[in-house]
Amino acid sequence: MKKVILDCDPGHDDAFAIMLAAQNLDLLGVTTIGGNGYLENVTRNALVVLEKIGRTDIPVYPGHSGPTLGELIICENVHGVSGLDGPVVSEPKRKPETKHAVDFIVETVMNTDHVTLCATGPLTNIAAALNREPRIAQRVDALYLMGGGAYAGNWRVAAEYNIYEDPEAAYKVFHSGMEIYMVGVNLTRQCPVRKDFVEQMRCLGTEAGVFAAELCDFFGRGGDAHLHDPCAIAWIIDPDIIKEAYLHVDIELTGTLTRGMTVTDLRFLQTNDPEKDIDLNSTKRWDDPPVGSPFRGEAPNTHVGMRLDYPKFCELVLNTLRNYN
Amino acid sequence: MKKVILDCDPGHDDAFAIMLAAQNLDLLGVTTIGGNGYLENVTRNALVVLEKIGRTDIPVYPGHSGPTLGELIICENVHGVSGLDGPVVSEPKRKPETKHAVDFIVETVMNTDHVTLCATGPLTNIAAALNREPRIAQRVDALYLMGGGAYAGNWRVAAEYNIYEDPEAAYKVFHSGMEIYMVGVNLTRQCPVRKDFVEQMRCLGTEAGVFAAELCDFFGRGGDAHLHDPCAIAWIIDPDIIKEAYLHVDIELTGTLTRGMTVTDLRFLQTNDPEKDIDLNSTKRWDDPPVGSPFRGEAPNTHVGMRLDYPKFCELVLNTLRNYN
Amino acid sequence: MKKVILDCDPGHDDAFAIMLAAQNLDLLGVTTIGGNGYLENVTRNALVVLEKIGRTDIPVYPGHSGPTLGELIICENVHGVSGLDGPVVSEPKRKPETKHAVDFIVETVMNTDHVTLCATGPLTNIAAALNREPRIAQRVDALYLMGGGAYAGNWRVAAEYNIYEDPEAAYKVFHSGMEIYMVGVNLTRQCPVRKDFVEQMRCLGTEAGVFAAELCDFFGRGGDAHLHDPCAIAWIIDPDIIKEAYLHVDIELTGTLTRGMTVTDLRFLQTNDPEKDIDLNSTKRWDDPPVGSPFRGEAPNTHVGMRLDYPKFCELVLNTLRNYN
Amino acid sequence: MKKVILDCDPGHDDAFAIMLAAQNLDLLGVTTIGGNGYLENVTRNALVVLEKIGRTDIPVYPGHSGPTLGELIICENVHGVSGLDGPVVSEPKRKPETKHAVDFIVETVMNTDHVTLCATGPLTNIAAALNREPRIAQRVDALYLMGGGAYAGNWRVAAEYNIYEDPEAAYKVFHSGMEIYMVGVNLTRQCPVRKDFVEQMRCLGTEAGVFAAELCDFFGRGGDAHLHDPCAIAWIIDPDIIKEAYLHVDIELTGTLTRGMTVTDLRFLQTNDPEKDIDLNSTKRWDDPPVGSPFRGEAPNTHVGMRLDYPKFCELVLNTLRNYN
Repeated sequence: MKKVILDCDPGHDDAFAIMLAAQNLDLLGVTTIGGNGYLENVTRNALVVLEKIGRTDIPVYPGHSGPTLGELIICENVHGVSGLDGPVVSEPKRKPETKHAVDFIVETVMNTDHVTLCATGPLTNIAAALNREPRIAQRVDALYLMGGGAYAGNWRVAAEYNIYEDPEAAYKVFHSGMEIYMVGVNLTRQCPVRKDFVEQMRCLGTEAGVFAAELCDFFGRGGDAHLHDPCAIAWIIDPDIIKEAYLHVDIELTGTLTRGMTVTDLRFLQTNDPEKDIDLNSTKRWDDPPVGSPFRGEAPNTHVGMRLDYPKFCELVLNTLRNYN
Repeated sequence: MKKVILDCDPGHDDAFAIMLAAQNLDLLGVTTIGGNGYLENVTRNALVVLEKIGRTDIPVYPGHSGPTLGELIICENVHGVSGLDGPVVSEPKRKPETKHAVDFIVETVMNTDHVTLCATGPLTNIAAALNREPRIAQRVDALYLMGGGAYAGNWRVAAEYNIYEDPEAAYKVFHSGMEIYMVGVNLTRQCPVRKDFVEQMRCLGTEAGVFAAELCDFFGRGGDAHLHDPCAIAWIIDPDIIKEAYLHVDIELTGTLTRGMTVTDLRFLQTNDPEKDIDLNSTKRWDDPPVGSPFRGEAPNTHVGMRLDYPKFCELVLNTLRNYN
Repeated sequence: MKKVILDCDPGHDDAFAIMLAAQNLDLLGVTTIGGNGYLENVTRNALVVLEKIGRTDIPVYPGHSGPTLGELIICENVHGVSGLDGPVVSEPKRKPETKHAVDFIVETVMNTDHVTLCATGPLTNIAAALNREPRIAQRVDALYLMGGGAYAGNWRVAAEYNIYEDPEAAYKVFHSGMEIYMVGVNLTRQCPVRKDFVEQMRCLGTEAGVFAAELCDFFGRGGDAHLHDPCAIAWIIDPDIIKEAYLHVDIELTGTLTRGMTVTDLRFLQTNDPEKDIDLNSTKRWDDPPVGSPFRGEAPNTHVGMRLDYPKFCELVLNTLRNYN
Repeated sequence: MKKVILDCDPGHDDAFAIMLAAQNLDLLGVTTIGGNGYLENVTRNALVVLEKIGRTDIPVYPGHSGPTLGELIICENVHGVSGLDGPVVSEPKRKPETKHAVDFIVETVMNTDHVTLCATGPLTNIAAALNREPRIAQRVDALYLMGGGAYAGNWRVAAEYNIYEDPEAAYKVFHSGMEIYMVGVNLTRQCPVRKDFVEQMRCLGTEAGVFAAELCDFFGRGGDAHLHDPCAIAWIIDPDIIKEAYLHVDIELTGTLTRGMTVTDLRFLQTNDPEKDIDLNSTKRWDDPPVGSPFRGEAPNTHVGMRLDYPKFCELVLNTLRNYN
């Protein structure tokens, strides 16, 4: 099983990411970041989820309380006051570790081969780790992240929440040379919280299943929710669950309308087919236009998730929830 | 027939726009703008095309030689040194009018009801007309423009040539309150220069057909060209030839990576369907999220061309070329 | 006498500029621009001032009603509702010309040698004239403008009103190659509306003197007003009235805090003298640092007004007001 | 004596800062930052200077190797290849501490009352410390920094090197609520490396004096060098050595021409006196203009160094060098 550190801000969909990772991967630790909720809350929520699935052996390290610059904006409208509203849970018995998340990430990566990072919140901790020890970019196998989008945002027209919350951190990460797998909102919209899927969770007969279903009851109350974060973990577990395009992605820092946009070079995936917007089978290449041509792109640097195998994803989730006692 | 002023920078695809407009619309005048080629060249090319189709009754007014700010960058790699390389043509016998394009636009629109503007080059002239006489925004029926893109660029990752060449002009136009129909590269890529289509032009037996075919021989020499500009005119002629989405579009002026981007709010056209990227039949609305929610968009201001009926377009072009005996 | 076109938005201090120019220069025409007040008002105010001094032979041409981009913000707090509050005046008997200010500027400059432009409002008309006919940049003797500042703003921390109102126009002007003389707020703060100066005007015994004094009564009511605009005209009349530094000035368009700033390279005027901030006698040069050094500047492009001879200025104003019978 | 942590990138002028601080303040530790030179070099140089003055009891903690974003640009043209070219020195016998500079800063400040921070390089370490533990902003007595300028830059027209190298870090610091004392290039140009001053150092008869003189020989070789960094330390030692203005300062992140500028609100220090540019005795206040007026500033947040008592500074330096046996 792949060795993974999960940096997250639970968050209902982060909770699914934790549950998937704890069972299907060698989860070395969970690090937390102020994002969907305040640091105190998301750290407690990580402990809650791990307790719920009986995995109190996995340590939780609190990280930064807010973004590199600017103020933290939490998503109370999405995740409720606690950051994990819905299921009734008791306070966790465990305390988080005293070591800082960034130190845990740096030390683990420098001392352990083949670590994969997964980030499902703002990239503040990952960027700080890169600032602290730039060599981790080459030491890790890869970074899988939930954030951004290939051609649209959510929190802003052109920007997704995790990237918009800390664009400077995202810039640092995308310019670090890390092998990056990006699961953006273009992909995660293919992962809806469907009523039948939720009922399947509830009927598994496990505590984890009921917990997951109750998370979805709250998270999906508005009728149009998606399980964003577990898509990133699912991709680590099963590379076939997502079809990718290998593209150049950069982070816009200064745009009046586009700050926090993951600017993705889609020019070579466009197709003449009037019914399709993007053609993953395009044989055009970014370097077909000669050097110096304005049409020429920059070399791809990101594996961009484009097509989710939703049935396979549901199966993975249900199997995982079934196996928790 | 609709009364139209065509502001253009011919340009091979502009030539098709002129030929379509002169026959199928009441073309009040052609105005020219430095863009694909230098003003002198594109003005001559407009005269050449009108002479070729025997419509020397349509006046040609030269406009601005370059963008509102910055330097003109012509597209010699696309359109050749003359801006209309390919067919052997003689110098036009006619001279352009002495009236400035902007004055022609302002005076015509202020004195004539129901004028439709069509712009297939940088929007410099249109913006200058709006600066000169802001009331034209409400006087015109609409502005159809070729420029931008709903989710991708061509000249830059996120910006299309016509907008990138003069973003300030585009900003002025999109903030003017004009009724705007935008034909961007997301639409025009559905309008390829196919070999069989070109041969059909050549075999029409008309001078115009051979001229058009020879334009395509040069323009399509690289194998991946599209007839961008005539899509805008075709949409005026036949509203059913393009399916639209009514969306909010704004112009990014300051982005390091995104200057000149037509930032289009696609959030409400996204779909759970994993095989589709954009769903024109989405019933979600920009104002479904409550006031104050970060997910809420701004009110739509632009008819964005999304799906071209290519066979119908080809038929329109061939019929038009056939009728220029 | 130098042939001058004065582009202005009267405005109390513009009124002084008009009065100085009409007597001491060959004032070919006054063009107006929406700025301190709405176009309609500033045009009427220009007519009022010219009527007051008996110079109804000087034509007034209305120009743009607002900036190249964005909305006009008038300075009602400074100039009152009419844009020229204070003296009781009757409506002007004359109408403005029907020719547009930009056309007047372009035609005059193209047909007349040695025209000097003077702009004391936002630079919208001048920029539009440059867009319409780029050759005027080389045709004019010079452009004297009131706007910007060598190291501080007024309307914003780093931006002065005239430039901030239309930064794109200022950018166009400063990049046009025109010979530019800039009178910024660093200079015009040396031109206070002093009580004794106002009383000297009032006691001249001329209608113009009383009018001028009443303008100052209103304009200086807050206790800290300056006669910005006439400094630019005074500099044309008497080159010795202002000491300059020849410096590189550029216009910031994109800064979050600095949009509209006239970024002035003062590095080579700094001095070791702890009591002086800027040393006009510095012998350091922008090109002392070798090519490629970060300390090296760009070649000067602007005559920046630095030191006003205030007594001489007052004398010029009083003499002028005295001579208007 | 005040308890101080000095964060620096020696650097010739940093060396003077270290020598002043080690004798006249309770220097708890020196932390280093990649800036004038590479981290490895500036760390070694810090050890060299402390060894030279016999203060190997003061620990040295290496910090970040480069800026928060972007690439490190060192100042080889100013400080030579080693970052401290000039005097012949042997490799230091001591090693730097293994604790990271940021951890040292955070732990010291959280555990010690009345610490004063002094930063004479890019603000990367200070910003990272603020990210790691936001409460240090309120825990420290103050931050004295060399960087920026009240109205001019050096490395760029409007930006000084230390701020330009890491504008994001500077933004973090200036928005942290720390009590900030800024020594910018407007102040430090008053601190020239004068030949007679250098000879006085050399003639002190101490090893430190000769070392200091040899530093100046190299540093001042171009004829126009200034002892920037020790001004910040000197201000901590003797509050009367610098006259300040208490002003609002903010950091420009996005300007095309002004990125890295310390935008300083000087509007209320301007004076009618034509021979002075800035009047420290101005009685105007940022909040004289009524709320909502565009002329109104924001509340001061920075003690900006404006006038240096150079003779007093020289005396402090000479006394210090004399006392190092």
